[in-house]
Amino acid sequence: MRIIIDAQNIDYLEILKRPCELNIGLREQVSAIISKVKADGDKALKEFTSKFDRVELDTIEVDLKALNDSKKHVETELGLAIEVASKNIEQFHAAQRIQEIEVNTMPGVTCKLLYRPLNRVGLYIPGGTAPLISTALMLGVPARVAGCNELIVCTPPPINPAILYACSLINARVFCVGGAQAIAAMAFGTESIPRVDKIFGPGNSFVTEAKMQVAAMGVPIDIPAGPSELLVVADESANPTFIAADLLSQAEHGTDSQVVLISTSQTIIDNTLNELKSQLTKLPRKEIAQESLKNSAAIKVDSIKRALEISNGYAPEHLILAVNDASRHVDQVMNAGSIFLGSYTPESVGDYASGTNHTLPTSGFARNWSGVSLNSFTKTITVQEVDKKGIASIGQTVIALAEAEQLNAHANAVKVRLNQLKKNQK
Amino acid sequence: MRIIIDAQNIDYLEILKRPCELNIGLREQVSAIISKVKADGDKALKEFTSKFDRVELDTIEVDLKALNDSKKHVETELGLAIEVASKNIEQFHAAQRIQEIEVNTMPGVTCKLLYRPLNRVGLYIPGGTAPLISTALMLGVPARVAGCNELIVCTPPPINPAILYACSLINARVFCVGGAQAIAAMAFGTESIPRVDKIFGPGNSFVTEAKMQVAAMGVPIDIPAGPSELLVVADESANPTFIAADLLSQAEHGTDSQVVLISTSQTIIDNTLNELKSQLTKLPRKEIAQESLKNSAAIKVDSIKRALEISNGYAPEHLILAVNDASRHVDQVMNAGSIFLGSYTPESVGDYASGTNHTLPTSGFARNWSGVSLNSFTKTITVQEVDKKGIASIGQTVIALAEAEQLNAHANAVKVRLNQLKKNQK
Repeated sequence: MRIIIDAQNIDYLEILKRPCELNIGLREQVSAIISKVKADGDKALKEFTSKFDRVELDTIEVDLKALNDSKKHVETELGLAIEVASKNIEQFHAAQRIQEIEVNTMPGVTCKLLYRPLNRVGLYIPGGTAPLISTALMLGVPARVAGCNELIVCTPPPINPAILYACSLINARVFCVGGAQAIAAMAFGTESIPRVDKIFGPGNSFVTEAKMQVAAMGVPIDIPAGPSELLVVADESANPTFIAADLLSQAEHGTDSQVVLISTSQTIIDNTLNELKSQLTKLPRKEIAQESLKNSAAIKVDSIKRALEISNGYAPEHLILAVNDASRHVDQVMNAGSIFLGSYTPESVGDYASGTNHTLPTSGFARNWSGVSLNSFTKTITVQEVDKKGIASIGQTVIALAEAEQLNAHANAVKVRLNQLKKNQK
Repeated sequence: MRIIIDAQNIDYLEILKRPCELNIGLREQVSAIISKVKADGDKALKEFTSKFDRVELDTIEVDLKALNDSKKHVETELGLAIEVASKNIEQFHAAQRIQEIEVNTMPGVTCKLLYRPLNRVGLYIPGGTAPLISTALMLGVPARVAGCNELIVCTPPPINPAILYACSLINARVFCVGGAQAIAAMAFGTESIPRVDKIFGPGNSFVTEAKMQVAAMGVPIDIPAGPSELLVVADESANPTFIAADLLSQAEHGTDSQVVLISTSQTIIDNTLNELKSQLTKLPRKEIAQESLKNSAAIKVDSIKRALEISNGYAPEHLILAVNDASRHVDQVMNAGSIFLGSYTPESVGDYASGTNHTLPTSGFARNWSGVSLNSFTKTITVQEVDKKGIASIGQTVIALAEAEQLNAHANAVKVRLNQLKKNQK
């Protein structure tokens, strides 16, 4: 971890550049996979699953019995944790439901904003050694709260029973396909997998590239993904043991993770670095964490204000404010995915169970993207109703603008109505 | 216009397929323009403007004096119309501001959802014979209501004074650049044009392709664009003169526009077709309208319910419900950009002045995209605060899930805090 003493001329965008993998040929490979799935449907899915996952699939969809039986294969304590997390996520997202809006902009002119759930959404759950149960909950629970009709989960074989149990709680149809081929299948549909309205979920570089490619074809996605990160702002009141544990919880994600500590106290920085060393030795994933600490930095600043200035420029996915009276600084945070206030709010509570969504903008995208919220599963429709009085008051405005834009049929649609009103008056 | 008698086995997706231009080589051309703007900045912008617009630019930014003086060059009636439209748009979008949300998901666990305006947004206003004043208002006014710091407008030369006047009302910086090069400049920044956080606005096939390409690189855009359309549902109470005028107001947009009439009354269909013929002859843009009517259809159905079923499948950008007691059918509309209720609500009021946004999902995207709203100019940040009581109640849930996901440092970030609490108790 590099140690930096803040100065006004430091180019933090350069110093805190996110590590990024260059994968030559990825674009072409993914594009070829998408084309093949579009052309050959299920047949292509089976071929890719055989090639990449070394599994021969008979049927692509997981049968209902396996979903219903899944609870039996999940340890009681884990089952309970899944239920508590679900409940919290449900509560926070249910509170995000908003009233429809209705405004009279002029006499006789009423405008409304309505919300509709997306009909069918696609949720990607990555495979790998550990089952990402929390991803299923973070995407599936809000989709259910929003009122989506159908949830389609794609996840590569072998599927862990805990994933199946989470999928049974969100009442999803589960398909045993992973990678770019799963994204293509959900975007365009195959014989087994229905086409979805929007695609959510994290994944490796193939999945991410596939999401960006289908997005460029008009299929909405949650957010672009990149390496994930944590920035901790700490004052002299912070606890170095806690900070070190938080930094490591981000660093263990992958070698391309990045963590940043900004503190007004050199003592806190020094003690945190010592704590990092000692906690690191005990971690099962210490090689990964060690590697990502190399991309990381500790910055000594003069004020919390300056710390937040640097943080806003960096736009962290996760921002811990381990400072006195942390909540009074929130107004100054302009760019961040999620904020964790005070010493007893580790990032991991948000990753799993506080109720906020853990699907957040990484890689600086917090500058201009939002994390997943209830809104991500809905769309809006506007409505307007103009009565005779209304058309009389708004008519000339529409005619003047339409004629200036040389769209005379637009003006005419108003004129035929104003003419009718004149006739009625006679 | 084709006339179709509804039957259950009709494949409307096929029959009402949107016309689409195939532009071979577009992708490569646009990609080359984007690369050149990224590499050469302003120099590339000047070269492309010389090549495509046949204008030699000295400076790319329109000077403040020209903006301030613009009102003088706008006719009084048009100036007034611009102000009325602005006011209505402002009122409807201001009503969309939502309260921040705060929920206690467990004792000692508080979650919040906050909103922040995007800092700098890019608004593209197409050139051409007619000045698209309304586009400047529909994008600029909500951006101001949302609290965006800086509005960047790009529009090709020559710039009409009415556009400049609209830009002065929204207090935008205006740059005299159009096409794919303008989109690239706003996405990545040049010496003159600052990089923006999100790009909005309609345009030709080059602009649209450029927006999709920069979106695939992580720059957010408003919505993918396609040919635009209107669907009218009419019962026997509708006025064929009004319907014909509405259909033509959409048909005049471009030869790739599409209009659809669905009615429970054969008489209404027949009379509308007659009206279309007679109104068409009087239109300045009749060649365009005539051409787009060829892509269009009138469908006779047995019920309004069936009409809305077909409409939901089609997902029109604009939906006019010219039926008795129109508002009672709104709940059945699942897919539409904007709905126009009753006989005195022509589509053109929404295009210009009712207050709703005219930037809507076309081409069937109303199935899974929203039109522009206040929300389009904001992003969300979540916050969580857990106190000592909170970590005690949520801790085991986080530990169980983190350990199941084999992320032990995540579990450890909770454990160090629970250990501290135990120490404190001793």
